[in-house]
Amino acid sequence: MEQVQLQSRYELAIIGCGPAGMAAALNAKIRNRDFILLGTESGSAKLGKAPQIENYLGLPQISGVELNRHFLSHLESRQISIVNQRVSAVYAGSRFTLMLTDQVLEAEAVILATGVSMQKPFPGEAQLLGRGVGYCATCDGPLYKDKRVAIISYTPEGEHEADFMATLGAQVVYIPFYKDVGSLDPRVEVKRTMIKGIHGQDRVESLELAGETLLLDGVFVLREFLPAEQLVSGLEMYEQVIRVDNSLKTNIAGLFAAGDCVGPPYQILKAVGQGSAAALNAITYLDERKKNDGEGKN
Amino acid sequence: MEQVQLQSRYELAIIGCGPAGMAAALNAKIRNRDFILLGTESGSAKLGKAPQIENYLGLPQISGVELNRHFLSHLESRQISIVNQRVSAVYAGSRFTLMLTDQVLEAEAVILATGVSMQKPFPGEAQLLGRGVGYCATCDGPLYKDKRVAIISYTPEGEHEADFMATLGAQVVYIPFYKDVGSLDPRVEVKRTMIKGIHGQDRVESLELAGETLLLDGVFVLREFLPAEQLVSGLEMYEQVIRVDNSLKTNIAGLFAAGDCVGPPYQILKAVGQGSAAALNAITYLDERKKNDGEGKN
Repeated sequence: MEQVQLQSRYELAIIGCGPAGMAAALNAKIRNRDFILLGTESGSAKLGKAPQIENYLGLPQISGVELNRHFLSHLESRQISIVNQRVSAVYAGSRFTLMLTDQVLEAEAVILATGVSMQKPFPGEAQLLGRGVGYCATCDGPLYKDKRVAIISYTPEGEHEADFMATLGAQVVYIPFYKDVGSLDPRVEVKRTMIKGIHGQDRVESLELAGETLLLDGVFVLREFLPAEQLVSGLEMYEQVIRVDNSLKTNIAGLFAAGDCVGPPYQILKAVGQGSAAALNAITYLDERKKNDGEGKN
Repeated sequence: MEQVQLQSRYELAIIGCGPAGMAAALNAKIRNRDFILLGTESGSAKLGKAPQIENYLGLPQISGVELNRHFLSHLESRQISIVNQRVSAVYAGSRFTLMLTDQVLEAEAVILATGVSMQKPFPGEAQLLGRGVGYCATCDGPLYKDKRVAIISYTPEGEHEADFMATLGAQVVYIPFYKDVGSLDPRVEVKRTMIKGIHGQDRVESLELAGETLLLDGVFVLREFLPAEQLVSGLEMYEQVIRVDNSLKTNIAGLFAAGDCVGPPYQILKAVGQGSAAALNAITYLDERKKNDGEGKN
């Protein structure tokens, strides 16, 4: 994994590197903007699962793996890197603040291209959110010193969080939902199991697995992306997808969304089209903001 | 030019064969729908003029000519033909009625993908529209028997209209705005010139050219596509582009629009994305319509 030196501030942050995020990044690059593309270096995991794609105009009869490879090599040809960091929260303000695993970034505009999660929340997850259920172990870690926590992770990045919690003195059970788990701190117990539900009255008390129940104080669920409304507080949704207008603007100024996360049809062409438009509209927003800032100051 | 035998009725008519129209057709084909794609067999004329396209994700550093060729060969690989017919009017009703040069078609749903015209109307054109200015010589032809008309044409199809008007007994001046004019009826006078304006009090009286003014009764302007609001009566516009909602629906049920004709950014990726989404939304519309028809009848 190549280590990219991150800036602390960008003009534009693009969260997600499926077709929409990649198209947005390509347009931001062509327009010479200062941006960061956050996602996984292997591009679109979902795309990779499509055996045959018939309707990506211009590239007939292509497999998802192959199309993803075309996309990645297009980015590479323009020196665009995908920064492998999970975003656990985005706060709107005079600038946006993005919480990464072990770093904080600022951006003047943000494009959400986080796709749709096919994973439903676990029973009890939504009810106990903020009361023992969390999405960022690192953030809440200090609260769980000497406590028992489970970390349920869909991405290998969860391993760092598990190790970190263990060094803080928490008793950690790590439940991976992906292949090839790396080597973890020996204090971390790794379990491959199913999740039946998270239980507790006022706070998390236990985690029900297949055939056993663990008594716990905290449960962290690390999906590739958070549900958008949990990622960005105050974001307006509509039938479980992000509400955008025709310009891909959300209800928050400077925050755009594109691709599957704004709803069906769940199509690659639609996603790249929206990613592209969102980037150009974000650039217009940035330019107007600069002009207004200049006017305000002078 | 291959002669395609047209049906008199289709489920879906797609008007325009730039990136948006082609993407719409591809999706309609994959979904096995009964559709017609109306445009010019050479695909997107505008695309062909782009020297280098950097942001068609997956096909880096490609010329417009080359990208258009990829698009056309993708259509060909799916046996999709482009029907070379100009649409002069679309009427909404229980079905849509499309007026072609010498034929009438019906369709249950229509996608407008007519692009943006970079050609502004001529001075006087809008004011005298319907009072001597028209967009379909064949339609209004009989009114101009023994009269003097000019046909200003951006497409070779205008030649048929000029010939037809001449056979009706009109005195025709043909003013082409394209290369390679074919052989016309000897009664048609061909002039290569500039248009300064169309004049007249209540009706067209004259056409002002560079250095001369012709006294006339009618002026027909044949652009590749009509301005959308003239093509479809009752179509709601917004800042000179077609107003659509997030699903690419216009204000008329069953009528969708995609690509440059719905406004900026004028981007190929945006156009293909919208074309793709418009096709899928039109298919949903068709399916619901069928279901409701069935319910109504039984």
